[in-house]
Amino acid sequence: MNEAAAHPAPLEARAAAIAAGDRRALARAITLVESTRPDHRAEAEALIERVLPHAGNSIRIGLSGVPGVGKSTFIEAFGLMLIRQGHRVAVLAVDPSSRRTGGSILGDKTRMTELARAEAAFIRPSPSGGTLGGVARRTRESIVLCEAAGFDVILVETVGVGQSETAVADMVDLFCLLLLPSAGDELQGIKKGIVELAELLLVNKADGELEAKARVAVGDYRAALRLLRPLSPLWQPEVLAVSAVTGQGLDAAWAAIERHEAAFEAAGEKARRRAAQAQAALWADLGDGMIEALRRRPAIAGRIPEIEAAVAAGTMTAMAGARRLLALFLGE
Amino acid sequence: MNEAAAHPAPLEARAAAIAAGDRRALARAITLVESTRPDHRAEAEALIERVLPHAGNSIRIGLSGVPGVGKSTFIEAFGLMLIRQGHRVAVLAVDPSSRRTGGSILGDKTRMTELARAEAAFIRPSPSGGTLGGVARRTRESIVLCEAAGFDVILVETVGVGQSETAVADMVDLFCLLLLPSAGDELQGIKKGIVELAELLLVNKADGELEAKARVAVGDYRAALRLLRPLSPLWQPEVLAVSAVTGQGLDAAWAAIERHEAAFEAAGEKARRRAAQAQAALWADLGDGMIEALRRRPAIAGRIPEIEAAVAAGTMTAMAGARRLLALFLGE
Repeated sequence: MNEAAAHPAPLEARAAAIAAGDRRALARAITLVESTRPDHRAEAEALIERVLPHAGNSIRIGLSGVPGVGKSTFIEAFGLMLIRQGHRVAVLAVDPSSRRTGGSILGDKTRMTELARAEAAFIRPSPSGGTLGGVARRTRESIVLCEAAGFDVILVETVGVGQSETAVADMVDLFCLLLLPSAGDELQGIKKGIVELAELLLVNKADGELEAKARVAVGDYRAALRLLRPLSPLWQPEVLAVSAVTGQGLDAAWAAIERHEAAFEAAGEKARRRAAQAQAALWADLGDGMIEALRRRPAIAGRIPEIEAAVAAGTMTAMAGARRLLALFLGE
Repeated sequence: MNEAAAHPAPLEARAAAIAAGDRRALARAITLVESTRPDHRAEAEALIERVLPHAGNSIRIGLSGVPGVGKSTFIEAFGLMLIRQGHRVAVLAVDPSSRRTGGSILGDKTRMTELARAEAAFIRPSPSGGTLGGVARRTRESIVLCEAAGFDVILVETVGVGQSETAVADMVDLFCLLLLPSAGDELQGIKKGIVELAELLLVNKADGELEAKARVAVGDYRAALRLLRPLSPLWQPEVLAVSAVTGQGLDAAWAAIERHEAAFEAAGEKARRRAAQAQAALWADLGDGMIEALRRRPAIAGRIPEIEAAVAAGTMTAMAGARRLLALFLGE
């Protein structure tokens, strides 16, 4: 926030710097977007409005997987491969549990040292604190800023806390799940519904003595996926073995992403999916904003605990509780 | 609505009639709950408040499956078996696409002729029209009314339109999925995430020449489920073969439900799950109520189409659109 306040350059100049691909200007704009100060918020919106015409031209890829699956190593290897092919890669994170002072795996850029140094890459940790809704909101705006700065591959990473995978799937063109080479193992710890969000599943660590195990896992996942209806009739989810360490399969993974992109673009489905995501976000943001406004009224905030407790205990129905709070808010 | 208006008996008498198990009084109370007239709403809440102390004592079971899976036949056979064991069974439906005049499979009680005539059963079609949120809200209140009337098994059925399974899973103790004996068949048409909501999967039509196929499907589903993390550490989802026609497996299905109930009760998890569901419903209902209030303001309603279109087209971010509508609502 101080960073943003310390650079009161005119909006036009800052928008131009972003559009020119200036990574410092981009970083400052994201800091502005992440600020909760009302004046920063207004400034952020004015800035986004200016760069919006430059945004949208990217592949947005969601990426998830349990801790230990090798996400950082994968992003480092995959990102460097894409850069060598001439792409510009931005890596964002959605992790509502993270704090700026630690926690978020992207906070520790030392795990992606080479990618972090690359001119064609931009890595940004998860916004700190706040609800999942708030983190997701700010990440959606950061995506727009990265696109405006010319990054054509946006990787949005999540560590799989609660509903964060759903939030990420709702802001990307394709959701990709990294898996351990041990299908069927309870230790995978994949949360309900997550497998079904994925249109690309990558069994990582297909190297050394785990390679054979990874091949078996690929077969198991393919069989399991045949029991689930695909998200889109345009695309049957693919399962591939990769190794972030040897680099094997990374090119095949990118080829699958490009096939997905081509199929969805050709059918007009990419634009449709993005439009539907944006509209859903509008109503979710509005609902969140209204509930925040309600909580800010001291007379109402004081009544919430008793009403919540009565509803939880079953001595008041949810609908009656909601009507009571709404009546207080509307001053009825 | 006319039915409700035509019986202006004092609230106390109507509450007592419901608590005594009077099915006509119950039906009238549900009609009141489903009414959108503000005076009916206030009356419904007063009535529910009175019967609430009698509610809660039931097993709430969600039931879904694609058209053609034999849901009506299953409910008829399963319900009659439970009645013979001394239970009282209420069947409700959540189907936002249904109209009172047709469509809903429960609207056509002729498909459950024997159960519909049984004194110990109560069958109610889906509330007509409205959003999924509205239908779910009214069904949650109808569950309370049925429990107050002494029904100890509540079956909440859905035909699987859009997000209705999630809505049903969020109002029951156990979600049960009926499947065709053809695992892996695309024609199953099961929507994303639905399999993972289910803690009991029943492969129906395990009779005649389909019996062998059903056994294979049971094995396939068991294998697939091992790749997914269970909803609760207390319960590994079970897959069973049943036949609504011969009645085979219905007792095993009920035994599984009772095991689930016992495990969750013993761990205090049934009450915890219901409390969490009620609290989530409170905030969802409040969010819906606030957005309805916003839509009712003519000056705002007129601005919604242009803002929605701009957000969908990507010329305005969702957050900016939401803030604009919120500012109009709060008069800022």
